[in-house]
Amino acid sequence: MAFFDLQNGLKLALWPRKSVAHDATISLQPRSATELTIGHNVGSKSEVDAVMEQAKRAGAKIIKPAEETFWAGYAGYFQDPDDHVSEIAWNPEIKVDE
Amino acid sequence: MAFFDLQNGLKLALWPRKSVAHDATISLQPRSATELTIGHNVGSKSEVDAVMEQAKRAGAKIIKPAEETFWAGYAGYFQDPDDHVSEIAWNPEIKVDE
Repeated sequence: MAFFDLQNGLKLALWPRKSVAHDATISLQPRSATELTIGHNVGSKSEVDAVMEQAKRAGAKIIKPAEETFWAGYAGYFQDPDDHVSEIAWNPEIKVDE
Repeated sequence: MAFFDLQNGLKLALWPRKSVAHDATISLQPRSATELTIGHNVGSKSEVDAVMEQAKRAGAKIIKPAEETFWAGYAGYFQDPDDHVSEIAWNPEIKVDE
């Protein structure tokens, strides 16, 4: 398992699906890519491209190459080897603090 | 859909699974309760009991009643009507700011 410290006590924890099932006392269920996505907002279009490229080099599958969005932003989606889907987005309305 | 503002620009967004599939350009997949859980740390055992009771009254299924954990804490799990699993936990090592 892995813990990623985010901010103010918030953590993103990755567990094997079996461990999730065991701890919650439910049966292990099949992978499903439409249960959650992680959205990562970055500060510019070029940063979207850079993160998408980094994910691709790390073995992710590009499922939606970055493109202009209907909400006047720019975003793409990739899927990691465990099937989890992430969106990398630039939204002109959102100021991203580094 | 619903957006919940958490902190420092972090949002929890709830979307219909169909919308997730559409936006990511992947096919809609079956529900799977072991893809993610939300862990909510509270400040005391009695607060765990209170939140579990609140979830139950709101229609959640209690899948693991709150009990002492192997890590010297106290936690329970419930599943909401959309099958999403949440853990409510008190961890003596974690100080929760209100």
